[in-house]
Amino acid sequence: MTFFETAAGELLVGGVPLRRLAERVGQTPFYAYDRALLAARVAAVRAALPQGMGLHYAMKANPMPALVGFMRPLVDGLDVASAGEMAVALDAGADPQHISFAGPGKRDAELRQAVAAGVLLNLESPREVALLADASGALGVPARVAVRVNPDFELRGAGMRMGGGAKPFGVDAEQVPALLKAIGAAGLQFEGFHLYPGSQNLKGELMAQGLRQSYELLLRLGADAPAPVQQINLGGGWGIPYFPGEQPLDLAPVTDALADIQARMGRAMPQARAVLELGRYLVGEAGVYVARVLDRKLSRGQVFLVTDGGMHHHLAASGNFGQVIRRNYPLAIGNRMGAADTESASVVGPLCTPLDVLGERTALARAEPGDLVVVFQSGAYGPSASPQGFLGHPPCAEVLV
Amino acid sequence: MTFFETAAGELLVGGVPLRRLAERVGQTPFYAYDRALLAARVAAVRAALPQGMGLHYAMKANPMPALVGFMRPLVDGLDVASAGEMAVALDAGADPQHISFAGPGKRDAELRQAVAAGVLLNLESPREVALLADASGALGVPARVAVRVNPDFELRGAGMRMGGGAKPFGVDAEQVPALLKAIGAAGLQFEGFHLYPGSQNLKGELMAQGLRQSYELLLRLGADAPAPVQQINLGGGWGIPYFPGEQPLDLAPVTDALADIQARMGRAMPQARAVLELGRYLVGEAGVYVARVLDRKLSRGQVFLVTDGGMHHHLAASGNFGQVIRRNYPLAIGNRMGAADTESASVVGPLCTPLDVLGERTALARAEPGDLVVVFQSGAYGPSASPQGFLGHPPCAEVLV
Repeated sequence: MTFFETAAGELLVGGVPLRRLAERVGQTPFYAYDRALLAARVAAVRAALPQGMGLHYAMKANPMPALVGFMRPLVDGLDVASAGEMAVALDAGADPQHISFAGPGKRDAELRQAVAAGVLLNLESPREVALLADASGALGVPARVAVRVNPDFELRGAGMRMGGGAKPFGVDAEQVPALLKAIGAAGLQFEGFHLYPGSQNLKGELMAQGLRQSYELLLRLGADAPAPVQQINLGGGWGIPYFPGEQPLDLAPVTDALADIQARMGRAMPQARAVLELGRYLVGEAGVYVARVLDRKLSRGQVFLVTDGGMHHHLAASGNFGQVIRRNYPLAIGNRMGAADTESASVVGPLCTPLDVLGERTALARAEPGDLVVVFQSGAYGPSASPQGFLGHPPCAEVLV
Repeated sequence: MTFFETAAGELLVGGVPLRRLAERVGQTPFYAYDRALLAARVAAVRAALPQGMGLHYAMKANPMPALVGFMRPLVDGLDVASAGEMAVALDAGADPQHISFAGPGKRDAELRQAVAAGVLLNLESPREVALLADASGALGVPARVAVRVNPDFELRGAGMRMGGGAKPFGVDAEQVPALLKAIGAAGLQFEGFHLYPGSQNLKGELMAQGLRQSYELLLRLGADAPAPVQQINLGGGWGIPYFPGEQPLDLAPVTDALADIQARMGRAMPQARAVLELGRYLVGEAGVYVARVLDRKLSRGQVFLVTDGGMHHHLAASGNFGQVIRRNYPLAIGNRMGAADTESASVVGPLCTPLDVLGERTALARAEPGDLVVVFQSGAYGPSASPQGFLGHPPCAEVLV
């Protein structure tokens, strides 16, 4: 379940042996992201997408500025979820024309910042129309808007659903015609639609079905648009496997559906471009979290490897980020890859709480203090999604290799 | 389930009406902690404890410097979980003699810092003995140590157990005699024992039983101590009610047990003092989290109040801090207390994730944009235990009133 190579029993990140990388970083714990794996994943997605379909990077998955800067020229645009992320995207050199901003609760000031920046705003509420009209008037810049739609059907297969039924995200499909009228009346610059089905979807067939239904819905809604549709953002939510038994997403049905949509759009809306926004799928498997073993403790027959890292840096691996049941992320002792001498050990962090677990009774090379524990599948929703200040421990480092 | 008063339909924090407090803070979201409630809780605990028993504040529950500074003169000592917390405790003016430092994975540098500061270290592993002997030698200051014991019986009633069975916390009772010998041989300054049963315990009878067993165990272990026992830290873990159906902790059996222990200690170890370390119980009910309603959305019959605050500031209220099933913290519209016009609404934050929920279909005064949502029982494990950087939104403020 890992794309990282090893040499002489040591994990390589960006070609650098892990212990040397730790010395270069100058501290543990740290996250390391592998440029070659990031580029390879983008290239693989590009190759699978139909010609002409756009690929955006959803920064929320990993907003490290250096990583965003690396991804920016590889993709066609960046999706941001706050004015904070927007600032990182702009600093990374992204063209505002190709930045889109979504979020169910944009503050008034954020809406104005977005208009000033010239990015595309995914409207999620009638509230935003009047605020944007004011900002447009005050700034003399028409607000660029798309409508985020909450579909009138269930989207299945996602680990976390974000469309269908009653939702805080987007505008219910049946309310969209009235919103489109209001957008036209307010003189906002309408550019298209956005529909985000949910995240961490590993079921290709169900995702394909949702994409086809989404296209149908957006085509229908487009009839009421105050201006020609230029962009349809079909969202993302492509999952990656984390746990034993999970299979990688089967892309074939998804790319079939996308090819079909692309062909039909070419006929129905020749002026419009379809784009996907992917976050976790592009970066999640290209990153590791690395912590050092501080202590090896034996308590009543169970081995505990106590590390200097834990839930304060990697909340998701501790099982406290939306998971109902805690399961182990893939783990290894990064300087003892392929070791013959293995054992069952629990990996815990330095915090005074039983929540601070990175691995529970999992098979690992026999480790000693000083060894490096690696948590794979850690390129997305890592440090930015973790309570770094918890218990006053130092923050982790991040490095792009 | 709240200790806060209201006046003219508005919540008071430290006597200040909530809307005025929000103006004083200058932003939403914010946490506000009420000095009078903090002091009243400490006084109530003092009154319930037997004469002479020590009361420590476990800073991990809320390490806001101003709050630690307020608590410091009210209690007999501070418990810290990292060198970072130790620095806050020292800055607050705590006497190092009355600071104790626990943690299953203390870094080498932290151990040395603690020796330099002169605080009491709760040893959790044989590993720490040699490191502390080195630090003591280098600094010319004997390390003050207590032994944190993992008991040889099950401790029941805690929401999260931290003693009994195989645990990363403390040293198994059966390994303690050897550790005590090593402490004596290394010339460390032995001062006593620490036993922490677990956190968020609402079952007084079970807690009392655990306290009695703990005392018996520590008395027995004290026979092998290299120096007279001066302090027995019986831990804490006193819970507070969060959810419908939860009852406040019944203190009577607990204080009975403590009185008994205190009397017996007076005979068996007249030189020793028993102390309790409480975190959540002292501060949890004295704090609120306040967010402003940005939008009122209706999606397929369900009302969503979209606020400028959410899981990035208050992870526990979103149900992602050790909870298996998400339940609503007590909530109110703080500027419409006791309003007759109520409805069922969901309270969500600004983040693009379905995890960002503060209240799900809960009965609230009918709210409009600009109103202030209050999450009660938020004085412990708030901002420091939340992923403040998530999605690039601004951090919350904190204020002591």
